[in-house]
Amino acid sequence: MSDVRLRRNEICYVTLLFFLNVHTVIGVWPKPQIVATSMEQYSLNPGNFKFQYASNSAAQLGCSVLDAAFKRYYSLIFPDYNAGPRDRHHLFEAKPYLLYIHVTQGGCESYPNPESSESYKLNVSTNQAELRTETVWGALRGLETFSQLVYQDDLGTYFVNKTEIEDFPRFQFRGILLDTSRHYLPVEAILKTLDAMSYSKFNVFHWHIVDDPSFPYQSRTFSDLSNKGAFHPMTHVYTQTDVRRVISHARLRGIRVLPEFDSPGHTQSWGKGQPGLLTPCYRGITPSGTFGPVNPATGSTYKFMTRLFKEVASVFPDSYIHLGGDEVDFTCWKSNPDVRQFMQKMGFGNYFTKLESFYMENIVNITSMLNRTAIVWQDVFDHHERCSSQAVVEVWKGGCYLCDLRRVTKAGLRVILATPWYLDQPGPTHDWARYYTVWPLAFKGQNLGALEMLQFEEKKNVCCVFDIHVSAESKGLLKS
Amino acid sequence: MSDVRLRRNEICYVTLLFFLNVHTVIGVWPKPQIVATSMEQYSLNPGNFKFQYASNSAAQLGCSVLDAAFKRYYSLIFPDYNAGPRDRHHLFEAKPYLLYIHVTQGGCESYPNPESSESYKLNVSTNQAELRTETVWGALRGLETFSQLVYQDDLGTYFVNKTEIEDFPRFQFRGILLDTSRHYLPVEAILKTLDAMSYSKFNVFHWHIVDDPSFPYQSRTFSDLSNKGAFHPMTHVYTQTDVRRVISHARLRGIRVLPEFDSPGHTQSWGKGQPGLLTPCYRGITPSGTFGPVNPATGSTYKFMTRLFKEVASVFPDSYIHLGGDEVDFTCWKSNPDVRQFMQKMGFGNYFTKLESFYMENIVNITSMLNRTAIVWQDVFDHHERCSSQAVVEVWKGGCYLCDLRRVTKAGLRVILATPWYLDQPGPTHDWARYYTVWPLAFKGQNLGALEMLQFEEKKNVCCVFDIHVSAESKGLLKS
Repeated sequence: MSDVRLRRNEICYVTLLFFLNVHTVIGVWPKPQIVATSMEQYSLNPGNFKFQYASNSAAQLGCSVLDAAFKRYYSLIFPDYNAGPRDRHHLFEAKPYLLYIHVTQGGCESYPNPESSESYKLNVSTNQAELRTETVWGALRGLETFSQLVYQDDLGTYFVNKTEIEDFPRFQFRGILLDTSRHYLPVEAILKTLDAMSYSKFNVFHWHIVDDPSFPYQSRTFSDLSNKGAFHPMTHVYTQTDVRRVISHARLRGIRVLPEFDSPGHTQSWGKGQPGLLTPCYRGITPSGTFGPVNPATGSTYKFMTRLFKEVASVFPDSYIHLGGDEVDFTCWKSNPDVRQFMQKMGFGNYFTKLESFYMENIVNITSMLNRTAIVWQDVFDHHERCSSQAVVEVWKGGCYLCDLRRVTKAGLRVILATPWYLDQPGPTHDWARYYTVWPLAFKGQNLGALEMLQFEEKKNVCCVFDIHVSAESKGLLKS
Repeated sequence: MSDVRLRRNEICYVTLLFFLNVHTVIGVWPKPQIVATSMEQYSLNPGNFKFQYASNSAAQLGCSVLDAAFKRYYSLIFPDYNAGPRDRHHLFEAKPYLLYIHVTQGGCESYPNPESSESYKLNVSTNQAELRTETVWGALRGLETFSQLVYQDDLGTYFVNKTEIEDFPRFQFRGILLDTSRHYLPVEAILKTLDAMSYSKFNVFHWHIVDDPSFPYQSRTFSDLSNKGAFHPMTHVYTQTDVRRVISHARLRGIRVLPEFDSPGHTQSWGKGQPGLLTPCYRGITPSGTFGPVNPATGSTYKFMTRLFKEVASVFPDSYIHLGGDEVDFTCWKSNPDVRQFMQKMGFGNYFTKLESFYMENIVNITSMLNRTAIVWQDVFDHHERCSSQAVVEVWKGGCYLCDLRRVTKAGLRVILATPWYLDQPGPTHDWARYYTVWPLAFKGQNLGALEMLQFEEKKNVCCVFDIHVSAESKGLLKS
């Protein structure tokens, strides 16, 4: 008898939890790892709500990241509230509701890195809430979650329910790519995108800053790149001050800025300001007047790239640099007698993928010397399986991207998945739901059955990127 | 005969210049020191106009101040122009009009100081213009002037006339004061004010950041000052990040940020977050529950002020700090037995101005130790003629402000004039023209007749402030 009663209680309990979970899914997005919520609700008076550093927190007032976040989130949580002198009397008499912030590490002036913990624990109860994290970046995620828990009734009163949340990101690298070459974006548009990213807990702004159509990055070292390669040399450029502003705005939201300088293809705009950089294409035995990818057969190319990436590494604090390497068209290289001669000298035969790999290896080496981890588009891996073990491979091609993920991770390389999240390609039926039904880890790792893989996901920092291109860096954990 | 002819030529020449000057006054504001212009006009094609660092300029691409200014001024000069890919063909075929910038000193990452030269020479001629300056700050002034020379005809074509300008500021200190205590101003509003200041070549943003009604500055050292003293502790505050943003935005426009922490009066809001700082007022022999100015009779006050100003000096890079010192009401001090006892001990008798001077001397000493020049409102000078020779006195009171200027400069002190430029006081007839008919130097210096004084103005860097309060710092040049 007692056994039966116990079971009934258990069933009730499970039902209740299920009901509450439904409520939670509506409330917080992306869904936190563990949520326990209740119907117990507390009304919040904007006038007596306060963020408060816990006394033993490593971050205290003066912490640039969190002080700024408190001000921002206050207005996000209470969008229709404006305190004025007339509210003050009321404000200081009501019992305060405090959200205590406890950060165990400091790092308020640091820059987020790929290993930064973003986990947090949030406990919302009577008269106070507690947010406990290791880093300020985790605190930002927790503040975002808290802001999404607050709601208003029809009369405009603010409420929050009793809630316990433990959360950490499933993937360490959650990116959005913006292409500012095909279409120049004003700095304000980029800053707004960063704001939006923070609401969905994205943490990497992949800045595809230059490409064929234009070169808007204003280089200190090579002024003509933007002077001649931007859509306009004065208005359609990113000055050093613009770049700093983007990086600072991103940092305050726990977002890394990953710059991409794609080569040797996608560089038509580079050629305008850097004569001799691109390969002259030939029609028969005479130059046709058009240019192909970067010329991989001349030393001046590598000298130029060394100086450019030295500058890039000094301007962008992120430990990663994206080197591109996609869609290299070999037609022009094939037409050029100097390139063909170089091929012969290097013993590449007619394998232009070998020339491409030679070029990319040199560029990866340049960025390695600058203590930067290189990311390359999957083409580099496809054409050269023994690609640098340092590099991270970004999968973007259609077809079987899960097969690609398997191949790359099997080779011991870390991978970022972009293919299923090209926002300009919602398909002919404009099926936006498609973006939400991706299973980035649904490929067979060596000797790993489906069950082990699920556990794997929960335990390890397997990384996933959501770029307008991009997603899923597995940190090589799925390798054999 | 030849003499007569010569004279006729002279008369023609003078007439021409007069005519041209009329044109110029319309064009550039404030009016440059020397302008020679002509009816010869050049059409400007936005698509082929460029700013260009002269090859031997100390500032080159990568100069944060000027790179950002070029981008800003391009849009200010050609407000209705938007380059797109379709314009590019045209853009690079037309003959370019180049504005060459030549800066003899560098200092692109520095902060403007009271001695920074802002002079510039601008020469606009066929196919190119030249802007020659000592500093990047002077270059900013010249860019502003150039932008004001460009005009559009009815068809929208842009023109600039052949022009030569030599310019330098008459006064070294040209300020605008914003009061963010009586009314909290969002950071965006402050940034817009800084933009507007740059159009009129103002160079000091006097930030009257705190006062009786509220304490919006979020101090790292004393968090309760804004927590309890701001109109709202989360939304109506200036975080450290906000302050940095204001300083950076100002720097890029050649504007210094002068912080004012006014005491011992005007500090009601300070008392909320710093118990014991203000003087408890008495009714007879019992405290009335109200508070007066900062308590000058206790050591804890000076300890607090030392820590506060240490922070202020670390946050605000400007070499000046405004210490206030205006409108101290002695009623509360008189009522307090501890203050009266202190007066007796110090031998001040019943002279509360002596107590006020004692307090201000201590505060000026604190900021001197921090290598900061103090500015005080004229009350401090009025009550204590042997006021620190380090301090600069700001004249704000009505009545004969020219008399005040004379008294202060005669005492060998530098002075800033504010009185005639209170923007909230255009008089009962709302006579705005009044602000433009001020003669800040029309007072007699010792042994100087009117004629010498005019020469004086032209030769020396006599400083004038245009605050919402404020204007005219004479650098002690008019002292005996």
